[in-house]
Amino acid sequence: MFRYELLDRVGKARLGRLETPHGTVETPAFMPVGTCASVKGVAPDRLRAAGVQIVLANTYHLLLRPGPETVAALGGLHRVMAWDRPILTDSGGYQVFSLAHLRQLDEEGVTFQSHVDGSPVRLTPAEAVRVQRQLGADVIMQLDECPPAGADRDHVAAAVERSALWAARCRDAWQAADGLSAQAKPQALFGIQQGGTDAKLRAESARKLVQLDLPGYAVGGLSVGEGHEAMCGVLDAVDELLPADRPRYLMGVGEPRDILAAVARGIDMFDCVLPTRNGRNAQAFTWSGRVRLRNARWREDARPLDEACDCYCCRNYSRGVLRHLFAAREMLGPTLVSVHNLHFFAELMRRVRASLADGTFADRSTAWLAAMYAADGQP
Amino acid sequence: MFRYELLDRVGKARLGRLETPHGTVETPAFMPVGTCASVKGVAPDRLRAAGVQIVLANTYHLLLRPGPETVAALGGLHRVMAWDRPILTDSGGYQVFSLAHLRQLDEEGVTFQSHVDGSPVRLTPAEAVRVQRQLGADVIMQLDECPPAGADRDHVAAAVERSALWAARCRDAWQAADGLSAQAKPQALFGIQQGGTDAKLRAESARKLVQLDLPGYAVGGLSVGEGHEAMCGVLDAVDELLPADRPRYLMGVGEPRDILAAVARGIDMFDCVLPTRNGRNAQAFTWSGRVRLRNARWREDARPLDEACDCYCCRNYSRGVLRHLFAAREMLGPTLVSVHNLHFFAELMRRVRASLADGTFADRSTAWLAAMYAADGQP
Repeated sequence: MFRYELLDRVGKARLGRLETPHGTVETPAFMPVGTCASVKGVAPDRLRAAGVQIVLANTYHLLLRPGPETVAALGGLHRVMAWDRPILTDSGGYQVFSLAHLRQLDEEGVTFQSHVDGSPVRLTPAEAVRVQRQLGADVIMQLDECPPAGADRDHVAAAVERSALWAARCRDAWQAADGLSAQAKPQALFGIQQGGTDAKLRAESARKLVQLDLPGYAVGGLSVGEGHEAMCGVLDAVDELLPADRPRYLMGVGEPRDILAAVARGIDMFDCVLPTRNGRNAQAFTWSGRVRLRNARWREDARPLDEACDCYCCRNYSRGVLRHLFAAREMLGPTLVSVHNLHFFAELMRRVRASLADGTFADRSTAWLAAMYAADGQP
Repeated sequence: MFRYELLDRVGKARLGRLETPHGTVETPAFMPVGTCASVKGVAPDRLRAAGVQIVLANTYHLLLRPGPETVAALGGLHRVMAWDRPILTDSGGYQVFSLAHLRQLDEEGVTFQSHVDGSPVRLTPAEAVRVQRQLGADVIMQLDECPPAGADRDHVAAAVERSALWAARCRDAWQAADGLSAQAKPQALFGIQQGGTDAKLRAESARKLVQLDLPGYAVGGLSVGEGHEAMCGVLDAVDELLPADRPRYLMGVGEPRDILAAVARGIDMFDCVLPTRNGRNAQAFTWSGRVRLRNARWREDARPLDEACDCYCCRNYSRGVLRHLFAAREMLGPTLVSVHNLHFFAELMRRVRASLADGTFADRSTAWLAAMYAADGQP
């Protein structure tokens, strides 16, 4: 029920196809984030119209509210999200280590305090798999330990060890959960590489994960503040460390510049809150740079964000109207710019795939970056 | 370009049709409110899908932000609202008297302080017409003085006098604005009856307005806290006070019980924030009463708000999911329940018109009210 097909390579960059029980994802792909089972402010028919093929939801948030039993009682995550296409859930690990209070870590798992009702919550590899089985996404992630940027080498090395141990335990729980073979299971389990920006630790982490023969591999522990160059340094080695016949997912990325650099280094999947978070903050992505809609220069501008964009926002609203909606604190402003930004990211990935197919990726990538970042020196 | 046709009468109740430059409105009709040129949280394609035929926008808010010149520069109110069907703007009078600070009233007009930038704003009858011409709605309203509920008789009598004087001045400004006859003008001007709950003042107010031979008449100064019975008392006289060949608009109503009582007494048009405001507060309208979605009883309820409703919310989301979206403070919750409520109000008016057409209005009206209000004794 889960199959990755590598269709073409251009250098290290890969054109592929991921088949899941809820349909096919063309890769490289970007996954919008629906933290609490909702892509903030954007109804699923708008996601579909944007050409979104897969979305991500956060196990950490759904574990605490409404709880996996409630999601299951309501028909599972696809019904809850009103989304019949592929879904990926993370394991909760990243949020436990970045958000949770009163965290206590041991070899078996991690205990933390619920931000919803203050109750203690225990997450172990087996529990992370159990919860994600109840949620019912197409792709589920191992529980890992994600150290903060700037953690010392011993801390990062310990996180690599622990994450590898937990990957094995997640695989065991996943394998034991039903009598099905890895290919026949309704959910694919991905392992997560850690190792910070240390090449040896990254290699060791990858080696241990690959031994587990998982359906896919993620690169974790990046986009935590290490910067573009350091991220590229880690990604330079990904293609040789991970098997060519499995999808590769760079967690938490994001920025178009990072996406293009990662595609060039062999990454297939991405997720980030950037299109919706920036949309809520009145910042729109366009091919000629970002548009900050609160700026007074747009007051009487009757042009859409992008003349060539066919999203619902650009077909119906001008920059001047969007500026007014933000000034008046109308909910429609955040929704419309989020819709536009999600279209932009889906279109970026369509152009990436098309340029990989016709061999123009490197040149086009350079031109896109120049046009996108030159205008205002934006990161 | 503006024409009202009375198609049928059932007692005092009227089935009609209002033709405007942006299309036809079947009456009795309910107008969702887009205060700042946006029906809060609801994109216009959802309004269209609900069967909404006309929306209202508030001149007071648009005068202060973004300003009528900016609306005009952005292509007019229809472009700004991304709505190519009929629009009605109020005159700003009601908000000046209920919201504005440092209000100073004289015979010529009213001066108040902008809540946006603190600047003084002057509104006169001629200015209200000028601003509404710049906005460009299909139906515009006279500037009136709306006294609060409980105002003494002298205050209400003075407001009747002043509102009648201002109605004449608005008509003069409207007539002088172009060389067109009343029928050929792109905007129809409605007068507003005042008079509180005093039958004599109401009759005097109507008599003065009718002398002006305006394209339509509104009943103002109700739904300000006087209660259902007092409102019905005023409306009992409307049919004999206002000419049969002009549309009648009851401002700020609202509550389904009030709408049905007003239709029975000869009202054709309504507006209210109820569907969207209650939607944002997790309260859904159904034919069997209101559903309070924050209630724990809906936690694992996989049924939609209304099995028979074909709105986007009911086709895609269960009560349990909606409850979760509100608990998690996701923007999609308010949007979805607002969409459902707007469908409910549009469907209520469709059923009202159908029952007027087949002569079952009185019986059905009684049955709807029993089912809607019996369940929980809700007003």
